[in-house]
Amino acid sequence: MALIVQKYGGSSVGTTDKIRAVAKRIVERKEKGDGVVVVVSAMGKTTDQLIGMAKEISQNPNKRELDMLMSTGEQISIALLSMALQELGYPSISLTGFQAGITTEGAHTKNRIKDINIENVKKHLEDGKVVIVAGFQGINEDGDITTLGRGGSDTSAVALAAKLNCTCEIYTDVDGIYNVDPRMYPNAKKLDSISYEEMMEMASLGAGVMEARAVEIACKYNIPIYVALNNGEKLGTYIKEYDETMEDRIITGLTASDDVLMVTINNVPYKAKNIATIFDRIAKHNVNIDMISQTASLDGYVNVSFTTSKEDMYTIDEITKELKKEIRTIEVYKEENITKISVVGIGMMKQSGVAAKVFCIFSNNDIEFKQVTTSEISISYTIDSKDKQKAVAALAKELNL
Amino acid sequence: MALIVQKYGGSSVGTTDKIRAVAKRIVERKEKGDGVVVVVSAMGKTTDQLIGMAKEISQNPNKRELDMLMSTGEQISIALLSMALQELGYPSISLTGFQAGITTEGAHTKNRIKDINIENVKKHLEDGKVVIVAGFQGINEDGDITTLGRGGSDTSAVALAAKLNCTCEIYTDVDGIYNVDPRMYPNAKKLDSISYEEMMEMASLGAGVMEARAVEIACKYNIPIYVALNNGEKLGTYIKEYDETMEDRIITGLTASDDVLMVTINNVPYKAKNIATIFDRIAKHNVNIDMISQTASLDGYVNVSFTTSKEDMYTIDEITKELKKEIRTIEVYKEENITKISVVGIGMMKQSGVAAKVFCIFSNNDIEFKQVTTSEISISYTIDSKDKQKAVAALAKELNL
Repeated sequence: MALIVQKYGGSSVGTTDKIRAVAKRIVERKEKGDGVVVVVSAMGKTTDQLIGMAKEISQNPNKRELDMLMSTGEQISIALLSMALQELGYPSISLTGFQAGITTEGAHTKNRIKDINIENVKKHLEDGKVVIVAGFQGINEDGDITTLGRGGSDTSAVALAAKLNCTCEIYTDVDGIYNVDPRMYPNAKKLDSISYEEMMEMASLGAGVMEARAVEIACKYNIPIYVALNNGEKLGTYIKEYDETMEDRIITGLTASDDVLMVTINNVPYKAKNIATIFDRIAKHNVNIDMISQTASLDGYVNVSFTTSKEDMYTIDEITKELKKEIRTIEVYKEENITKISVVGIGMMKQSGVAAKVFCIFSNNDIEFKQVTTSEISISYTIDSKDKQKAVAALAKELNL
Repeated sequence: MALIVQKYGGSSVGTTDKIRAVAKRIVERKEKGDGVVVVVSAMGKTTDQLIGMAKEISQNPNKRELDMLMSTGEQISIALLSMALQELGYPSISLTGFQAGITTEGAHTKNRIKDINIENVKKHLEDGKVVIVAGFQGINEDGDITTLGRGGSDTSAVALAAKLNCTCEIYTDVDGIYNVDPRMYPNAKKLDSISYEEMMEMASLGAGVMEARAVEIACKYNIPIYVALNNGEKLGTYIKEYDETMEDRIITGLTASDDVLMVTINNVPYKAKNIATIFDRIAKHNVNIDMISQTASLDGYVNVSFTTSKEDMYTIDEITKELKKEIRTIEVYKEENITKISVVGIGMMKQSGVAAKVFCIFSNNDIEFKQVTTSEISISYTIDSKDKQKAVAALAKELNL
């Protein structure tokens, strides 16, 4: 029996009519004789609505309880999808993250999958059932319900595919991976295929289609991911091992992310211990930071800037309060109107000069950048958000995207 | 440390504002030094909305999946209530039925609590936390999420109180137990106390305030239940062992239930085996039936009538289909406009003549009844629903309720 894992995102199951349509698509696959595992997200805006209720009660709700709350969104969709399949006459069973054997580790709302005990899923597959698993969730060793963070359903799907050693199909409301987000740049081109490494970079740099963590797991277990429109009408994009068909591209994609909070800490007494204290405290609160820059000042003090996600705003405030007790001289500023622009391509490993070219394009278009970071296959710049459209258009045009 | 179990119903937690108000009430109790376990229902009409979505997908949704779906309602309220308590500075933890150790047995959507492994609840109480448990739900031995049927949160609360050997307070939108539903009879009187036995009868006969199953558990473990308004402003009603303060009442209460489906099966060939087949089939589908009557006919056929709950309508249709294959002569009719009127009182055990008096009242008021059943402490009559108001008013007046 061939196996397939399909994942349907929130917009694909936004209404009961859409859930019925998804059930029909699953039946088409089932009729080909394949064993089907389906991972679903919460219906439409359910997760946002749940978070909205939590915010009515607390500006900074307890994260264990937030996980308890948010995990209900997927539980609703799996139950309804299973009912829809049975209404079409196909045996099926819905499983919460816990029932599907998904154990997690890490901090609440940002858990990682630790392992999947796949036995229960396999048992139901062997019974001929379509197995419908709640994405985005698991259970930790304390028996608490946990979530994997935004986009975590992709991770659930790919991790299940890895355990079952089969392809993972991600059905969503976009018809594949584009070299630039078409909402920002209408002439963007859809890619037939993209390597795991490039997709990981693009995902972590803000391309919303796939989560980096999910691609990382697919890469590790060499599980192909196919991203396509949820009605199956157009050919989508394969995310897979780098091969010769991709070799002639220097730059595969361009991303722009507005989810950037730039934090600047001024007047830090210039001692290594102080800088260590700052970043140690940030790490202890499970805040991921991205670009870091430090400027020396003349009088024995330094200024440190770093970027993080806007969702960590309140945690940053807590950290700041703690730090001010220990390093009394510091002043902290937060800037929200920051965009991170990145160019990604494995071809950049072999060909230099991309960074220089981008500097040149920025200069010709009067765009100032604040920070720059590079990896082997990407270069990222933070700029003022007001320059975003101009920067995307100029880069996409000059780099032939 | 004194312990208390409090239960707040759906209308008490219908909005985030109401949830915050409940959190304040819990804090008042906590401040007295008591250990508090709280059981909550789903917010307002959540359960109905979830069932509505299920019905959009299937007229007769799979019951395992319906349990999976409905259990999310309580999971949302426990998470939000725990956030609200922590926002007030009080440590708390929310637990699903499964996490609270509540195991169940029986059929999906109609489970019974099998046992509660109270260790996890006790551990968190010892840590000084308010423990917030999802009512209405548990987990069966297959690891499936189960629900206890409508009103099951009362059962969850009383069962937890039984395990912790403490009083159970049920806070709701009515201020206690009345001898007649005040919406039907404005002159109804609130009872200071009522015996377990009377309350069980009244609950199973349709008084909506408490579920019979919950009172049964309280009776078995001799746990007092206190039913009161959720804002604590008025004195409520104690449900407890029968004592001398209750002895001078012959009739304690009058109930009227519209949740009656009367099923009549005509033309059953008169053999004991046929009647056995009918009721055996009903039992196998976990449909509870109430009043049964049988009328002989002249030509070797009999007609059988019984009443059940309207929620079993679709299951009855399935049973009917099966039965028609085996007993081909039968014709099945369903009647929905039926009301069951009951009078309840332990005093009836010592004093006879209540049935005769009711017959007389019905006759004087031109009310026809269809079926009668009696227990040691109650008499019930089914009547046409159009006569309900007239019957309630006449009985309440003539019996001095």
